[in-house]
Amino acid sequence: MPRTAAALVIGDELLSGKIQDENVVFLGRELFALGVRLRRVVMCPDDVEQIARDVRELSAAHDLVFTSGGVGPTHDDVTMAALAAAFGRRLVRSPEVEAMLRSFYGERITDGHLRMATMPEGATLVRSAAIPWPIFVVDNVYVFPGVPELFRLKFPALRDRLGSGTAFVTREIYTRSDEGEIAVALGEVQRAHPDVAIGSYPRWRDTERRVKLTFDGTSVDAIDRAVAAVLALLPPDSVLPPP
Amino acid sequence: MPRTAAALVIGDELLSGKIQDENVVFLGRELFALGVRLRRVVMCPDDVEQIARDVRELSAAHDLVFTSGGVGPTHDDVTMAALAAAFGRRLVRSPEVEAMLRSFYGERITDGHLRMATMPEGATLVRSAAIPWPIFVVDNVYVFPGVPELFRLKFPALRDRLGSGTAFVTREIYTRSDEGEIAVALGEVQRAHPDVAIGSYPRWRDTERRVKLTFDGTSVDAIDRAVAAVLALLPPDSVLPPP
Repeated sequence: MPRTAAALVIGDELLSGKIQDENVVFLGRELFALGVRLRRVVMCPDDVEQIARDVRELSAAHDLVFTSGGVGPTHDDVTMAALAAAFGRRLVRSPEVEAMLRSFYGERITDGHLRMATMPEGATLVRSAAIPWPIFVVDNVYVFPGVPELFRLKFPALRDRLGSGTAFVTREIYTRSDEGEIAVALGEVQRAHPDVAIGSYPRWRDTERRVKLTFDGTSVDAIDRAVAAVLALLPPDSVLPPP
Repeated sequence: MPRTAAALVIGDELLSGKIQDENVVFLGRELFALGVRLRRVVMCPDDVEQIARDVRELSAAHDLVFTSGGVGPTHDDVTMAALAAAFGRRLVRSPEVEAMLRSFYGERITDGHLRMATMPEGATLVRSAAIPWPIFVVDNVYVFPGVPELFRLKFPALRDRLGSGTAFVTREIYTRSDEGEIAVALGEVQRAHPDVAIGSYPRWRDTERRVKLTFDGTSVDAIDRAVAAVLALLPPDSVLPPP
């Protein structure tokens, strides 16, 4: 069985539509390539109790949890406090992180900067030469910043730890047929190929490639068989190369 | 108290990173302008039981729920079946929707197309001259397609129903100060102005406007007071006009 993962995306600014999340699509794609199944994403406000509840639930139900956001120095950055509450741990100042902050800020350092050295007792740090700042890990929860550039910069440092599964593979077909015309036959192919997840996505405003069909799984052979079964039911001139 | 809302964003293709969701940011912005508080977003796979569980929980905990995705004719479109399970209702074929489908497809209609007339018993339809296809409503759940163009086209038909609250207002300030320098003082302003939600967002790679501060609330006067308190603590030459 592939390992499962969940993401908790934290921030009032996402729920009020001020900012569009960009981390879920990146995380989903990375985990898919690593053979880890992202099963659930929750987006919640900057609220300690709510975040703690969500972390507890997601951590218990999945092998891995990734949080995004709420890790800076200001009053609305409450992820560390919520993680401490979720796992019943004290918040402590990490001497290792404090030394990194003092080295970076020198004499300009403030109590605000030092807040970023606060973490739940027993949290560990993932460091790598490629990232200027470590990834905090609390139990099975990996703590990431919300800033997409930093999320993308830091994630690769985890690849070796996470990539022990069988990578998922995907194939796609584009067709001129509309979904309603092929729905019943496609459902039969799906039932005959339970190891392959067949997705069907209408392509709004594309009058040629009206539907994209995707075939996801861990066995290339099984995927090829499902693709062949679908090609057999589509009129040959309705299948088109990718755009 | 403003009404609360949640969104359930449905689809394997989002969790595997094939597609980036675009509906949450739109919905968040629309609800903010209508004075409805979007408190929670859940993203889940095309799984009837999981969707049903999430619908039940979100529906019980919020005034309004919006679903996105899973409403086409293919086997991976299971939102209607999940809604029926969530509310303990039978799935029935709507004569009204069937008539619309028959009128649209004429002799080309298939069983696949007709699947789109299936809905939980007692569901109602919101129609408007501006939208070619109604919005399905089950209890307090509004059912939307995942295709962003259709989501955006249909949502305005609900504005009159939802817009009875006091619209939220937001103001913003850009500053050259870094978050660590202002964090402690900013936290004090937040405590002194509990009716205004102050957000602080570092702007990666902008060396001038390094932080955006936002002030959200329902009272313009309260927001103006919080903005003034923050301006009083920032060095005057560190405040910059919006980019």
